[in-house]
Amino acid sequence: MTIERHLTRFSVPPLHEETRELAAVASGRLCPDLVITGARVLSTYSERTLQDRELWVHRGRIAALKPAGAARVAGLQPGQITDVQGGIIAPGLVDPHVHIESSMMTACAYAEVALLNGTTTIFCDSHEIGNVADAAGIEWMLEDARAAPLNIFLTVPSTVPATGPRYETAGGDLTPAKIGALFDRWPEAVALGEKMDFVQVCEGDVRSHGIIAEALKRGRPVSGHVYGREFVAAYAASGVTDTHEAVTRDIADDMIEAGLWIYLRGGPPTTPWHSLPAAIRAITELGADPKRFCVCTDDRDADDLFLFGMDWVVREAIAAGIAPNRAWSMGSLHPATRYGMDGEIGGLGGGRRADLVLLNDAMEVQHTWYGGALMVENRAITPLLEQQLEQGRYRYPDAAYRTVILPEIPALVPPLPNEACRVNVIRTVSPSDIALKHEVVSLPRETSWSTHLDAHGLCFLSVVERHGHSGEAAHGLLAGFGLTEGAVASSVGHDAHNIVAAGRDEASMRLAVEAIRANGGGVVVVGGGRIRAEVALPIAGLLSDKRATEVAAETVLLKQAWAAQGCTLPYMGFNLIPLSVIPEIRITDKGLLTVPGMVQLTLVVAA
Amino acid sequence: MTIERHLTRFSVPPLHEETRELAAVASGRLCPDLVITGARVLSTYSERTLQDRELWVHRGRIAALKPAGAARVAGLQPGQITDVQGGIIAPGLVDPHVHIESSMMTACAYAEVALLNGTTTIFCDSHEIGNVADAAGIEWMLEDARAAPLNIFLTVPSTVPATGPRYETAGGDLTPAKIGALFDRWPEAVALGEKMDFVQVCEGDVRSHGIIAEALKRGRPVSGHVYGREFVAAYAASGVTDTHEAVTRDIADDMIEAGLWIYLRGGPPTTPWHSLPAAIRAITELGADPKRFCVCTDDRDADDLFLFGMDWVVREAIAAGIAPNRAWSMGSLHPATRYGMDGEIGGLGGGRRADLVLLNDAMEVQHTWYGGALMVENRAITPLLEQQLEQGRYRYPDAAYRTVILPEIPALVPPLPNEACRVNVIRTVSPSDIALKHEVVSLPRETSWSTHLDAHGLCFLSVVERHGHSGEAAHGLLAGFGLTEGAVASSVGHDAHNIVAAGRDEASMRLAVEAIRANGGGVVVVGGGRIRAEVALPIAGLLSDKRATEVAAETVLLKQAWAAQGCTLPYMGFNLIPLSVIPEIRITDKGLLTVPGMVQLTLVVAA
Repeated sequence: MTIERHLTRFSVPPLHEETRELAAVASGRLCPDLVITGARVLSTYSERTLQDRELWVHRGRIAALKPAGAARVAGLQPGQITDVQGGIIAPGLVDPHVHIESSMMTACAYAEVALLNGTTTIFCDSHEIGNVADAAGIEWMLEDARAAPLNIFLTVPSTVPATGPRYETAGGDLTPAKIGALFDRWPEAVALGEKMDFVQVCEGDVRSHGIIAEALKRGRPVSGHVYGREFVAAYAASGVTDTHEAVTRDIADDMIEAGLWIYLRGGPPTTPWHSLPAAIRAITELGADPKRFCVCTDDRDADDLFLFGMDWVVREAIAAGIAPNRAWSMGSLHPATRYGMDGEIGGLGGGRRADLVLLNDAMEVQHTWYGGALMVENRAITPLLEQQLEQGRYRYPDAAYRTVILPEIPALVPPLPNEACRVNVIRTVSPSDIALKHEVVSLPRETSWSTHLDAHGLCFLSVVERHGHSGEAAHGLLAGFGLTEGAVASSVGHDAHNIVAAGRDEASMRLAVEAIRANGGGVVVVGGGRIRAEVALPIAGLLSDKRATEVAAETVLLKQAWAAQGCTLPYMGFNLIPLSVIPEIRITDKGLLTVPGMVQLTLVVAA
Repeated sequence: MTIERHLTRFSVPPLHEETRELAAVASGRLCPDLVITGARVLSTYSERTLQDRELWVHRGRIAALKPAGAARVAGLQPGQITDVQGGIIAPGLVDPHVHIESSMMTACAYAEVALLNGTTTIFCDSHEIGNVADAAGIEWMLEDARAAPLNIFLTVPSTVPATGPRYETAGGDLTPAKIGALFDRWPEAVALGEKMDFVQVCEGDVRSHGIIAEALKRGRPVSGHVYGREFVAAYAASGVTDTHEAVTRDIADDMIEAGLWIYLRGGPPTTPWHSLPAAIRAITELGADPKRFCVCTDDRDADDLFLFGMDWVVREAIAAGIAPNRAWSMGSLHPATRYGMDGEIGGLGGGRRADLVLLNDAMEVQHTWYGGALMVENRAITPLLEQQLEQGRYRYPDAAYRTVILPEIPALVPPLPNEACRVNVIRTVSPSDIALKHEVVSLPRETSWSTHLDAHGLCFLSVVERHGHSGEAAHGLLAGFGLTEGAVASSVGHDAHNIVAAGRDEASMRLAVEAIRANGGGVVVVGGGRIRAEVALPIAGLLSDKRATEVAAETVLLKQAWAAQGCTLPYMGFNLIPLSVIPEIRITDKGLLTVPGMVQLTLVVAA
């Protein structure tokens, strides 16, 4: 079955092919394809609300903002005019920093929920798939992005792998040369993605600066990721010009003065990602002008995307004291300007793409037009979008479905010490903290692991190499995780994306890892000896190939089962346990590792 | 004699070569070349004034803004620290729209007065030299720009010739292909220059849109030039995204909502260019947010540049009610952002060029550093700059000195009508109005022209083709110009830059035109049968090859002699008499022409 209209970013011809037509419409010599009338108009340029205007749309672009009634005067028929009868017309939102993979869905699937949230453009850092499948993975996702009904631009992943082969086995190694080639091959590669190894950058690491240079010498901006006020100056001096990691008022203030664009990150309030309310105080309390502040989402679970999208982040900015039109501009025009695309998106000026939303007075998205086509109507997707999502999603190549390479499942628990010893333990801090504490625990001589686990509130923790190299597992112990019985496991083990598993017994862990292997990836909860919930992630071990609603529903069930097993860290926090750049202790497939010291430890402390 | 240090835009290496060094300095591992302390700091990012900071500069770039005293704590010697003892450190100004040729000086000469005004970057539209010498002229000027101690970027001239060969003979014909080639050959070609034929653009003219397409398809912005609220929408729909022609509050308001960046143009208050006070009311009265407003100079006489530079325009914005730091940002960060260069210029963030000024509390420029080198100190140029300007200015090729090609001077006055007739006359409107009125005057039969001239307050007006084509003159009559005797003539006859001459007798006119021919270009005043003042413009008939101070001094004398002859239009207004796109009547080498009707007229009205 063919789709009547497959709408992508390319369905709207480039502006340079359309200027004569648009000028003719704006001059009144030609009738527009569509007129939207009956609403106030939110200007992101002036930050005012304009009364008595109507929007003339032609060939998927804005021809002109005209006085209300102009279309009728010009003789257009009522059928050519959409009277929305109230509300506010605004430009679609532009998310300056997203990792699509966090939602465990493809770009095509992501588009559905983005459009529901009024988001029509995203700048995506496909860092995770790069860690699994190198440049090929990024290119798969770019093809996926090109098939989506959404403007998706790439900020080229800059820190793959997060550390190096001494510390972990990853599937990707994005050298400066490969990054340069991605810039040259893909016009949508508009910036360098967040340069996460900020300590190395500040210390002048040659490879890190070589990667930055690939962007700068092509005139592309460099996105940042930095914690700690002491690093801000050297990081900015390294050529980085944005950040979404302003987590306090004062570091936000330092960053704006260092010349960084600030992307205020909003996330579900129970997560560690909701730094907007603190950082926005650089504006509301310290008086910084908001012109270089944007809002962004960064990471989102699939189900949370439906509730906490870019529109919600904008409303959080309003709740924090920013005027509504300004807040909307921080979510549309400001990001567009930051990437030099304000002639194409982010406002309702002539020639821009007709990526539009209709808002109610609470700034909630009612309708979304993408390239002039109505994709969301009264908060529901239209049949046009439904058909495309059902039948027109990009199909990843077979190689993308074969990335969990694990001929045999190795031992998932460490050998029982045969005498008293001290062991290095990883302790969780809180559900909303991604740091992990390093503890040393003394174990007496025992005849079974379970006695130790019970005595210290521990569970087993393993990371299994799954890129087809060693196939081996590193073993650790996790304290404070709360797992009462069974196991949880995930092939989304940041950033190398080996399989991370925690359990109270090896059989449960094995069952979980086996399910991941069978599906080519996934997140699994095992309880009572059987699988309680799972999200299959067959694409690169990171992505479902289902639709947004399905992935969200599976995610809800996963979270319920996860909590039912007593786990204190949510699954996204659990996925970060192998992330070898966050203090103060992590585990990778190569074993335990302190951060930032980068000292590799054995499980049993050497005498 | 060689110059010790020839400082140009290229003296500061590109950022991608310097990030490791800058990170080392910002981290405190390496000493900076220069520390500037003792001043408050103007942040264009936050629009606040920062206290107790010092600026660390290294290799011509900003390494970091540090707490005051940090350099001393780090063990730097007093000799490495410049204590300015008060005032305000701010980024150098960025002029988003300039025609260097209007100052009748070269780019190297222009740099002197720019730096005195605290301007360290300009975006120049070398439209005039393009009209004389086509792409070659633009490339000469680009070479000149590369040798100047100033960041000079090109907005590629877009409307050369202003009309076409039917209406006038020009030396340039910049087709879409030639414009595309300039973009591809010159990295400093960052935008398309003002598309002046806005009526044709709005009407969908194929060549005009073809030229716009060359910019848009390369991702380059398009600069605008438009009068009349009725044209704004179609002009914006054509892909234009800035304007410096917002001459009233209400058209400025239309333009900002159409998505255009607004360059508020300040000019000497006696000229027609000072539109800032009116247009800025879109902010101060109508409440538009200022984030997309810049300030610019556009055109300036050499002597006016010393008094009415970008710094003066910023102060005019302050006088109009804009807060000082915001106004400075409109003259630095905002233009940098508009051209996507805010990572390089326009603020004091890490990694940016150390293009800096020290201001007093009245926002007057005291010192200017260009790429970290002190070029202006206490309002005077330093020996470093003096030596470079004296010995290191670019020398244009010989061909640039041979553009006034006029083997014989044709008759400069029309034949005396041998019977009563009616003649088409051009009437000046006012010294500050560039429009000209069309009148028809009845002449009785007389035996000499002088009787007619006296009776109607007329003088002769001729335009002589000088590009080596026909070598012929068109004849007209000018009313209201006030010339009492003698003649004035100029090879800067916009935009085709033929020679325009006005006089009360042919001998005086011939003397003036002869002087222009001898010098290869110039502006000349003849009185009492001899040359009273002249500015020789041997380069393309447009530019002096002298220094700014010399050109300014000659310009002052020229203006005095000009006024002494009674001329009501200033010389820049006189130069615009042949400009074939301004209502309502003009004269070119092809004769009289009505605008916008484009009807060619004979001097004597046909019976």
